Amino acid sequence: MEDTQLTQLGRDVRGFDSPEAAILECVPNPHPGTTYLVRFTAPEFTSLCPVTGQPDFAHLVIDYVPGEWLVESKSLKLYLGAFRNHGAFHEDCTLAIAKRLVETLSPPWLRIGGYWYPRGGIPIDVFWQTGAAPEGLWLPDQGVAPYRGRG
Amino acid sequence: MEDTQLTQLGRDVRGFDSPEAAILECVPNPHPGTTYLVRFTAPEFTSLCPVTGQPDFAHLVIDYVPGEWLVESKSLKLYLGAFRNHGAFHEDCTLAIAKRLVETLSPPWLRIGGYWYPRGGIPIDVFWQTGAAPEGLWLPDQGVAPYRGRG
Amino acid sequence: MEDTQLTQLGRDVRGFDSPEAAILECVPNPHPGTTYLVRFTAPEFTSLCPVTGQPDFAHLVIDYVPGEWLVESKSLKLYLGAFRNHGAFHEDCTLAIAKRLVETLSPPWLRIGGYWYPRGGIPIDVFWQTGAAPEGLWLPDQGVAPYRGRG
Amino acid sequence: MEDTQLTQLGRDVRGFDSPEAAILECVPNPHPGTTYLVRFTAPEFTSLCPVTGQPDFAHLVIDYVPGEWLVESKSLKLYLGAFRNHGAFHEDCTLAIAKRLVETLSPPWLRIGGYWYPRGGIPIDVFWQTGAAPEGLWLPDQGVAPYRGRG
Amino acid sequence: MEDTQLTQLGRDVRGFDSPEAAILECVPNPHPGTTYLVRFTAPEFTSLCPVTGQPDFAHLVIDYVPGEWLVESKSLKLYLGAFRNHGAFHEDCTLAIAKRLVETLSPPWLRIGGYWYPRGGIPIDVFWQTGAAPEGLWLPDQGVAPYRGRG
Amino acid sequence: MEDTQLTQLGRDVRGFDSPEAAILECVPNPHPGTTYLVRFTAPEFTSLCPVTGQPDFAHLVIDYVPGEWLVESKSLKLYLGAFRNHGAFHEDCTLAIAKRLVETLSPPWLRIGGYWYPRGGIPIDVFWQTGAAPEGLWLPDQGVAPYRGRG
Amino acid sequence: MEDTQLTQLGRDVRGFDSPEAAILECVPNPHPGTTYLVRFTAPEFTSLCPVTGQPDFAHLVIDYVPGEWLVESKSLKLYLGAFRNHGAFHEDCTLAIAKRLVETLSPPWLRIGGYWYPRGGIPIDVFWQTGAAPEGLWLPDQGVAPYRGRG
Amino acid sequence: MEDTQLTQLGRDVRGFDSPEAAILECVPNPHPGTTYLVRFTAPEFTSLCPVTGQPDFAHLVIDYVPGEWLVESKSLKLYLGAFRNHGAFHEDCTLAIAKRLVETLSPPWLRIGGYWYPRGGIPIDVFWQTGAAPEGLWLPDQGVAPYRGRG
Amino acid sequence: MEDTQLTQLGRDVRGFDSPEAAILECVPNPHPGTTYLVRFTAPEFTSLCPVTGQPDFAHLVIDYVPGEWLVESKSLKLYLGAFRNHGAFHEDCTLAIAKRLVETLSPPWLRIGGYWYPRGGIPIDVFWQTGAAPEGLWLPDQGVAPYRGRG
Amino acid sequence: MEDTQLTQLGRDVRGFDSPEAAILECVPNPHPGTTYLVRFTAPEFTSLCPVTGQPDFAHLVIDYVPGEWLVESKSLKLYLGAFRNHGAFHEDCTLAIAKRLVETLSPPWLRIGGYWYPRGGIPIDVFWQTGAAPEGLWLPDQGVAPYRGRG
Ligand SMILES: [Ca+2]
Ligand SMILES: [Ca+2]
Ligand SMILES: [Ca+2]
Ligand SMILES: [Ca+2]
Ligand SMILES: [Ca+2]
Ligand SMILES: [Ca+2]
Ligand SMILES: [Ca+2]
Ligand SMILES: [Ca+2]
Ligand SMILES: [Ca+2]
Ligand SMILES: [Ca+2]
Ligand SMILES: [Ca+2]
Ligand SMILES: [Ca+2]
Ligand SMILES: [Ca+2]
Ligand SMILES: [Ca+2]
Ligand SMILES: [Ca+2]
Ligand SMILES: [Ca+2]
Repeated sequence: MEDTQLTQLGRDVRGFDSPEAAILECVPNPHPGTTYLVRFTAPEFTSLCPVTGQPDFAHLVIDYVPGEWLVESKSLKLYLGAFRNHGAFHEDCTLAIAKRLVETLSPPWLRIGGYWYPRGGIPIDVFWQTGAAPEGLWLPDQGVAPYRGRG
Repeated sequence: MEDTQLTQLGRDVRGFDSPEAAILECVPNPHPGTTYLVRFTAPEFTSLCPVTGQPDFAHLVIDYVPGEWLVESKSLKLYLGAFRNHGAFHEDCTLAIAKRLVETLSPPWLRIGGYWYPRGGIPIDVFWQTGAAPEGLWLPDQGVAPYRGRG
Repeated sequence: MEDTQLTQLGRDVRGFDSPEAAILECVPNPHPGTTYLVRFTAPEFTSLCPVTGQPDFAHLVIDYVPGEWLVESKSLKLYLGAFRNHGAFHEDCTLAIAKRLVETLSPPWLRIGGYWYPRGGIPIDVFWQTGAAPEGLWLPDQGVAPYRGRG
Repeated sequence: MEDTQLTQLGRDVRGFDSPEAAILECVPNPHPGTTYLVRFTAPEFTSLCPVTGQPDFAHLVIDYVPGEWLVESKSLKLYLGAFRNHGAFHEDCTLAIAKRLVETLSPPWLRIGGYWYPRGGIPIDVFWQTGAAPEGLWLPDQGVAPYRGRG
Repeated sequence: MEDTQLTQLGRDVRGFDSPEAAILECVPNPHPGTTYLVRFTAPEFTSLCPVTGQPDFAHLVIDYVPGEWLVESKSLKLYLGAFRNHGAFHEDCTLAIAKRLVETLSPPWLRIGGYWYPRGGIPIDVFWQTGAAPEGLWLPDQGVAPYRGRG
Repeated sequence: MEDTQLTQLGRDVRGFDSPEAAILECVPNPHPGTTYLVRFTAPEFTSLCPVTGQPDFAHLVIDYVPGEWLVESKSLKLYLGAFRNHGAFHEDCTLAIAKRLVETLSPPWLRIGGYWYPRGGIPIDVFWQTGAAPEGLWLPDQGVAPYRGRG
Repeated sequence: MEDTQLTQLGRDVRGFDSPEAAILECVPNPHPGTTYLVRFTAPEFTSLCPVTGQPDFAHLVIDYVPGEWLVESKSLKLYLGAFRNHGAFHEDCTLAIAKRLVETLSPPWLRIGGYWYPRGGIPIDVFWQTGAAPEGLWLPDQGVAPYRGRG
Repeated sequence: MEDTQLTQLGRDVRGFDSPEAAILECVPNPHPGTTYLVRFTAPEFTSLCPVTGQPDFAHLVIDYVPGEWLVESKSLKLYLGAFRNHGAFHEDCTLAIAKRLVETLSPPWLRIGGYWYPRGGIPIDVFWQTGAAPEGLWLPDQGVAPYRGRG
Repeated sequence: MEDTQLTQLGRDVRGFDSPEAAILECVPNPHPGTTYLVRFTAPEFTSLCPVTGQPDFAHLVIDYVPGEWLVESKSLKLYLGAFRNHGAFHEDCTLAIAKRLVETLSPPWLRIGGYWYPRGGIPIDVFWQTGAAPEGLWLPDQGVAPYRGRG
Repeated sequence: MEDTQLTQLGRDVRGFDSPEAAILECVPNPHPGTTYLVRFTAPEFTSLCPVTGQPDFAHLVIDYVPGEWLVESKSLKLYLGAFRNHGAFHEDCTLAIAKRLVETLSPPWLRIGGYWYPRGGIPIDVFWQTGAAPEGLWLPDQGVAPYRGRG
């Protein structure tokens, strides 16, 4: 087994109180110079409504092209868990996550899809990417089923 | 073509202002004495919340065993449309429809499933039947997909 | 290859003008005395509305336990095709088909599910069986997806 | 519109800090003496692992037969939201919710299905009911899709 | 929690009598200068047929790129609810909603998909966008399942 | 309610004996100069095989960009119903419908997808469009599920 | 690894020319005295029509309760493959397979579901079991999706 | 009804012993000069493994743009049926069918998708087209669901 | 957070070399005397074929009614992982897992469904339960989709 | 039947201890000079986590355009099986497989999709291709369903 400097993977780590407090850890990209895509699907995201304080829920999908670094997945999970008591609009929250990852990883390219649970019968989805995808990148659809109400 | 006394089918009929005003029309059951099931699926139901006055939406499925009469489907559609400006809780509304049909048709057996759109992220379903189904009746599941949020 | 007295299978046969004119052909049941189920699924059924003369469409599923005879499937197809210019309510039409088969085959048991396309936004399904299914019969659900409108 | 004594529906209410602090409100059953089923689907449930403190997520479905009272749906939502910082095993958490509802509503019958998100690749589902369902009750399947991993 | 000037979110607000009377409220875009997409899915839309006065139902999906403003989701819900007693053809209604949003938000780009329930067995879908999507925008398919009748 | 010159909508109209006899009615496009798409889905289409005289069935989807006119949907339904006793190959039938609409509406753009039921175990699909779609048009996939036999 | 007397598993074996020629091999039931179910799903079955000589296709599902023996799965595959040039009606073919297995294994219980591809637009399904299932046996639905034509 | 020179449609024709022996028949394209697509879906394809002689199964989808000729569908069915006792690798077999059709029809464009059943748990799909599709052609996805193992 | 004697949950534990070496840990049932169901879904199971030594894969679903003990889910995961280099027939392997759990937990009732990936195109499913389910237990279907080959 | 130099197909071959030890065998491309696509779907892939030693599972899809050689599918299966006791991060493992195939086959083009089972509730997908696809190649979506948690 390979040896790494990770402080969270394979250890018992408690969560963080806020997104700012959470630490995103990286591992060296084992295939630097290769343009490939890494996708994380996070169906367990929850934050708070900034106006009413009620909990909000979302299904998030994050796609990025690694440069020098990969984000370590357990640290990403703990970072996302740190929004549990954070208040922000759906649009704001989705973009803030993407921008934190951009700042940490300086990836050649990244996008995020935020699929939020309905409020008042109407869900909001938020989609952002850092720009046009790199040439020659293979970029599949995120394929999340549309909301359909009942029946 | 067969001739009937129906006042609404094949004619241009405006809707009714309230459930009480609507007229449920019947046609004679062409197979009296045969225990069979008739199912209506009404995905276009809407009423009002009795507390907030906001619109509510539901997908309704009605199953019944005809006795002497069949309910004529266009009159049923107009009756259901008459809930458009009627305020009642989900549970109340669903049972009221079933009981009106029971009163009109005196069917040997009837049930209703009300599948309401989510409010506050939580949908309510309401299920009622007049009693155990008649022996030998073939009664398929209503098969409405459960609500699943997003993702 | 086996030789049979069938007049329609493997030959070019024109359709019939009415259900009464159509001929249901039978073949001897190769497993008499065995209680098994035969299911026909007919998604290409069409008849006329008896009041407006407009075309109606249905997806039909017929289940029966063979006694002495099997119904030959091409003759069944031609019989169902003969409803093309026949006017009858959904409930009537569905039961008439079942009863013709009962009369022709004298099967120990039979049921029919008629899944009609929506009119006025509300589809009608009709379900009938000759009685409780024989003991020990294996009888799967017909599994037709419920109507769900849009979305 | 009907007038009620509800303190939470149609008003701006903050959440509760623990399940014990939350208030389940009731409204009189508009159809007492009728054996029918009410189903709540709550895809936005989250609590904490009692050992590691990590967040857990579940999709809950609650079915009950109302006696004298209906549970008011907004108060149910706030009660479920109060598990956000509560630590308990999946099995414990699911049964505790059911038992609180039984205590509050004294319903003739109740059941709960807790469909938990996978941990270590293996999800846990928990199913409980207060006993055999009342005779003549119509009780559809909860129909939650099984977990299937990837592919 | 953030403080805003919204008059409807977190308050008990009755609906509006017509689309003209409804007020679309905005909040400042928290990420101005970033080209991202916001999607609203509204499966609870209903209006009236301008010729027969009968209710029509639609599932609407709205996609837009925010400029200076975001539309506040509760005000959007109330605006859409105001079509409840408004008569217009499917094509007209769908485009009118899109144009009102364009006028209110002056978004860099917007599109609407209107998926209407069948009438006479034939549903109508209406699709419009303000022009070609901005370069580098990530724009997923709306993915609404096609109408398929029965079976 | 708006007043129109339509002869068929909201009235009891019998069908036509042949496609040639049917009258396609139009209404003025309420949004002329706007490049948008109108989609009709017709799962109730049936015609005859020109060689054997047997009934054929198809699921049709028609997409067009309106110019001066919209096709009125009830007249379209009656036109499609007029193929009931018309014999033509699948490929011919599908294109004839499209060309009749082109001739009637002179739309900037139109396409048709004809999804025919299997014969001999092999279904035929037919796809045609008048040319490349207009720039800036939003044109979703027709999304009809492929035929898959059994299992 | 365990040692067995099997002549076909792990070896390169050519197929058989007829069902009669094929050899069904058995292995001792490792859990005799335990009432459990073994299910084989065979989506690659093909035989010939006894009247026209055309190929027929089916998806077969076989359920049985082992007694002293398990059927070895490679020998079952070769037996089913031996119907490739055998002519028989759907009903006959399905029951013949079941009866051969009964004769070979003397299982406490067995059933077969034959889901045949459509001919003339109408598929046939055949269902048989040796009798009522043993008490306490867990017997899931075979869950094959119903045929639905197109759309 | 139209009169044609076809030797197989509407007649009882036995199959062919090899692909070489089969006759592909054509009918004149009723819409020459129009760039449209014809799709055949053949879920009943079977051939033999050239190394082991075991049967192989595939689901084939063929798309082409007709030039002067259409392929007659019954003759296509008989041609495909003639691979029943033919041995070839999956890749070879799929391309051979496409090339025979190209030779027979000289179509402006053609493609084939061969979706083979798994061997050793791994299915092979083969995709070929004669070149880039003609400009302005409408070419939907073949949409065959990917293999997913179990669960 | 609750304190427990668990040696594996929340700690970094290596896997076991064989099923015999693995340790199944228990926690006290928090609701003893209540008849409820716990379901584990394990889509990541793999073992070896006892004859060829090739890897086999299965999707397992385990249902049980707890008595005094719950099985701790991380220890269950490690136990299942210990079959990685163990050779046994599908039927044997499935029942061995169930019987080890019965021995460890002495549950009032238990069942297992083993859904194995296809070999030679034919998957095997294995179903066992300890006897009839306790009265009043709510026991949903395991709902695993049937294998369907391709297309 | 064709004769080949393959050492593994049609023979009983044990697996390999590591990816390095496995031998990828080739067969000559029967259609050299034709730009077509071959897709392998491997839902039975498993390796080890390089940090914790725990098993990981993935569903892999490999697409390539053959040049002089085809990879023989049984040797590919054995190569993939050789990762069973190999430790590597998801990103590394997926790219290593692709690069080994590129080295062996020198294909004009290749891509791989690695769809990994969730860890910590968050699955990782990895997508790589050797560059832009060849002109005129037909390249369908891999179409793997996105992960969706529960509900
Ligand atoms: Ca797509
Ligand atoms: Ca609906
Ligand atoms: Ca809601
Ligand atoms: Ca979800
Ligand atoms: Ca309709
Ligand atoms: Ca809907
Ligand atoms: Ca997990
Ligand atoms: Ca899988
Ligand atoms: Ca259908
Ligand atoms: Ca199949
Ligand atoms: Ca057919
Ligand atoms: Ca259809
Ligand atoms: Ca296989
Ligand atoms: Ca699986
Ligand atoms: Ca198939
Ligand atoms: Ca969910």
